[in-house]
Amino acid sequence: MHRFNRRKFLQFTGMAGTSLLLPGNGTAAPVPSFEFDEIGLSKWELETPSLCLELEVMESNLKKVHQNLQGTGIGVRPHIKTHKTPALARMQLEAGAVGVCAAKLSESEAMLENGIPNVLMTGVNVSPGKIKKAMDLRKKHPGFIQAVDNPENAADLQEAAKAAGIIAEVVVDLDVINRSGVPTGKPALALAQQVDRSPNLHFMGILAYDGGAQHVKGYGPRKARTERTFEPVVATYESLIISGLNVEIFSGAGTGTYDMMGIVPGFTDVQVGSYLFMDAQYMAIGSKENEALYDDFDPSLTVMTTVINTNHPNRLVTDSGAKAFTINKPSGIVIGEPDFTYNAGSDEYGTVTYNQANREYRVGDKLEVIVPHCDPVVNLYDRIYGIRRGKVETILPVLARGMSR
Amino acid sequence: MHRFNRRKFLQFTGMAGTSLLLPGNGTAAPVPSFEFDEIGLSKWELETPSLCLELEVMESNLKKVHQNLQGTGIGVRPHIKTHKTPALARMQLEAGAVGVCAAKLSESEAMLENGIPNVLMTGVNVSPGKIKKAMDLRKKHPGFIQAVDNPENAADLQEAAKAAGIIAEVVVDLDVINRSGVPTGKPALALAQQVDRSPNLHFMGILAYDGGAQHVKGYGPRKARTERTFEPVVATYESLIISGLNVEIFSGAGTGTYDMMGIVPGFTDVQVGSYLFMDAQYMAIGSKENEALYDDFDPSLTVMTTVINTNHPNRLVTDSGAKAFTINKPSGIVIGEPDFTYNAGSDEYGTVTYNQANREYRVGDKLEVIVPHCDPVVNLYDRIYGIRRGKVETILPVLARGMSR
Repeated sequence: MHRFNRRKFLQFTGMAGTSLLLPGNGTAAPVPSFEFDEIGLSKWELETPSLCLELEVMESNLKKVHQNLQGTGIGVRPHIKTHKTPALARMQLEAGAVGVCAAKLSESEAMLENGIPNVLMTGVNVSPGKIKKAMDLRKKHPGFIQAVDNPENAADLQEAAKAAGIIAEVVVDLDVINRSGVPTGKPALALAQQVDRSPNLHFMGILAYDGGAQHVKGYGPRKARTERTFEPVVATYESLIISGLNVEIFSGAGTGTYDMMGIVPGFTDVQVGSYLFMDAQYMAIGSKENEALYDDFDPSLTVMTTVINTNHPNRLVTDSGAKAFTINKPSGIVIGEPDFTYNAGSDEYGTVTYNQANREYRVGDKLEVIVPHCDPVVNLYDRIYGIRRGKVETILPVLARGMSR
Repeated sequence: MHRFNRRKFLQFTGMAGTSLLLPGNGTAAPVPSFEFDEIGLSKWELETPSLCLELEVMESNLKKVHQNLQGTGIGVRPHIKTHKTPALARMQLEAGAVGVCAAKLSESEAMLENGIPNVLMTGVNVSPGKIKKAMDLRKKHPGFIQAVDNPENAADLQEAAKAAGIIAEVVVDLDVINRSGVPTGKPALALAQQVDRSPNLHFMGILAYDGGAQHVKGYGPRKARTERTFEPVVATYESLIISGLNVEIFSGAGTGTYDMMGIVPGFTDVQVGSYLFMDAQYMAIGSKENEALYDDFDPSLTVMTTVINTNHPNRLVTDSGAKAFTINKPSGIVIGEPDFTYNAGSDEYGTVTYNQANREYRVGDKLEVIVPHCDPVVNLYDRIYGIRRGKVETILPVLARGMSR
């Protein structure tokens, strides 16, 4: 059995010559078990569970989001919380993204330290340790933009930026779903003005992400909700403009609402993430033209699983449970078997139940399953197999996996 | 900022001098971002989310399972699918375990290659690649025991063991909950006899794990179910004995049923996993003496989280959502705040709602939260902070994290 070596891995990932350093230590990417002699294998030959990405479908999604927004003046700033993979962020930038978003500091670091120069961190840093680290990162990477959502935190950022000897770019996160963010209206204006006045902070604009709108079923209801949500956001934006602030960034929206933002004056870019992969959750929300299936983008991300037990009628047991799929609903979709229901409720085992199967299944047969919810599923895997014409073309290390800090 | 280095890491983990090699490549453990100058910090100073283990509570649980089984003649073979951490497996062996169980082949490899000599893999290997790899592992590690649950697979194992030039130890997995396993009764007896006849396989015994019984609420109903489930298992066991087979291993049960197995003749060991950590799910099942709270073992595993937003009354937003906690129910339990409900339904954010709080919370304050379901939560983290008297004493690398193959 051939063992993995670093040079070969670099070559496999197509990243030789670019930085593959792990943030903070200088060793190669975390490498899970099993051989790396997998380039060129059929996806059906991979040991399972394996996370697979149909490259042609992904590349088509990558282009479509730009095509669909053409002429709107709205840019794309993909959220890498979905894929946590610098190699995919690079493809997004090459396809025309204005930069990327990251949710967490450690995730931002993984991107910045692996060749992604423009990262907007949508979450806030509130601990002294994270704030200091964020400023150190900004010192090293001028394309790093931070968020703030309260006045005390803005004061802390100012102090830390001053201590680091930099002027740090900052956006103000607006509260749209009672989660993160400063209340819209006067508090938001006051905070933006505070940032703008802070000598070591550079006010860049606002964030307004309605996480709850993305999975509302039906294009009409989604749009109605978005219009409602953005009413106070737009009023806030206008008050900022009137007060003379320069709002370079007005960012928000996701895969469910990316094509509705033309209604929002001053809006600059959408933070789409799932569009690259799609999943059972997004497929269920319906699109403008198709109420039953959201088909603006096509599913590219699947988990290959193996049937390990066929002893019971109308039931297959697989080797892929909650640790391979999460327990998100709707559950995974078995490709080619519309009557199959995939239950990933057990940690280690999947159970498929059905009334009708298109073929007979035996122990060792494999199933390809569209993931329930792409973000947390990707966060279970150290690598993604890039598949083209049925074969492994590349292996993408998920370098920000587990980076929730 | 000081950077991590390998020597320091080894020293931190208390594993210097023992093997910390990652299976398959010879580099150090996968090291996530952030500094490693965390030994000696208060757990309240850790950046969040952080997975923390109260060492004294864990050590007490480690002993209790043996104390509670004293005089029963039943041994303990802990299931490492729960912790995926060789350092914890070593403590379990030192506390008197007869060996450990692992669910998957890559997980078994991570244990065997990191100094855990006795591993019983409870899942089956059905692909040619995994079967060959399992035999290679057995050749290197004589303490590796494999499972089988169908005749074709037994034939494949025989062939692979022969090709590897070994006699491989094999247990037969019995079907108790229509998931994995060979049907009890004649099919199980025939399979055991087939294994016993196979020149390159050594029949070691049987597995019978009722995963569904572990979380049945109430000691009485749990015991009633176990008695019912084990009726055909015991009949099968007796037919094996009558047929002259040597059943050295008769293994099953988990943290919910470990103290009920005295009713099963010939039973040798319990595959407890969660007893070490506990979680909200197990706490809710009730014990023999306490119907409201399962208290044979105490919760030792928590996630430290940070409050990042307090703008809304009776609501706190934290930095720890589904990627830190999973979406398992019942949800995490905030220590010291019995009225708090922790919602980890968002990928990146947690939301606490309450009517009554024991103190006022501000942005930057931390919450310590007992995990919903320990196994999949541990599988999200690369390391566990070992805490004693409130401070970080050690950092345990979760070397089998993500090893679901």
